[in-house]
Amino acid sequence: MTDATAFADVLDAILFNADGLVPAIAQAEGGGEILMMAWMNRDSVIETLTTGRVCYWSRSRGGLWRKGETSGQVQRLKDFRVDCDGDTLLLIVEQDGVACHTGRRSCFYRAWRDGKLEIIQEVQTDPSELYGHHGHSHG
Amino acid sequence: MTDATAFADVLDAILFNADGLVPAIAQAEGGGEILMMAWMNRDSVIETLTTGRVCYWSRSRGGLWRKGETSGQVQRLKDFRVDCDGDTLLLIVEQDGVACHTGRRSCFYRAWRDGKLEIIQEVQTDPSELYGHHGHSHG
Repeated sequence: MTDATAFADVLDAILFNADGLVPAIAQAEGGGEILMMAWMNRDSVIETLTTGRVCYWSRSRGGLWRKGETSGQVQRLKDFRVDCDGDTLLLIVEQDGVACHTGRRSCFYRAWRDGKLEIIQEVQTDPSELYGHHGHSHG
Repeated sequence: MTDATAFADVLDAILFNADGLVPAIAQAEGGGEILMMAWMNRDSVIETLTTGRVCYWSRSRGGLWRKGETSGQVQRLKDFRVDCDGDTLLLIVEQDGVACHTGRRSCFYRAWRDGKLEIIQEVQTDPSELYGHHGHSHG
């Protein structure tokens, strides 16, 4: 059993929403690229701080989402930050390979340019290499 | 009247939640620091893309929140990005002064270090200089 009392200070500072969730931004250590945004619940916060590997809450699957468990796209936690009103988290991570299920480094690969949405980042890893025939476990 | 049809491409790509809102991360141009996370609705997306000045939706006030209107903490839009599943936005901005209502550059000034939440960023501007006696208009 994880000792939640060890994390009381941080858990008390987080304002989980009505669904018990808080948005968490993942930023790459060093370069500072924003990789993705996903959601965490209380258990995923505790697991992430305990193991040092980022664990989100998958809203689509309704379960803990250990990032990279299937795909190898593991995120190692380097810093865990809470914003001023406690309703958003910022995770500084070391990302193994790409973060996005499309095989791109970042999920934010579309930008509004000259009146249309353009793709500004190329696929780095074939998604079939990440998920095989199992489909992706995006949250 | 703003011509929403001009933004159909980007509006169609955004998955607004049941409240008609989408989270938007603000990242500083250049250095890449994450400044804050707030929410946008359809109107604030259109206004932001039209004016080039970031306008959020204030959930607490239930109205458009033209960042910096009262405080001078204006964010000039440099790039507007949409993530893979369209449920989060990333705004690359030029931030006038500080982003946080506490007078710190970033809202993410608390970090989990050695078993406790530590303040890792100092106040740069006295909040009373930002809001005077009016209190802050945080969303």
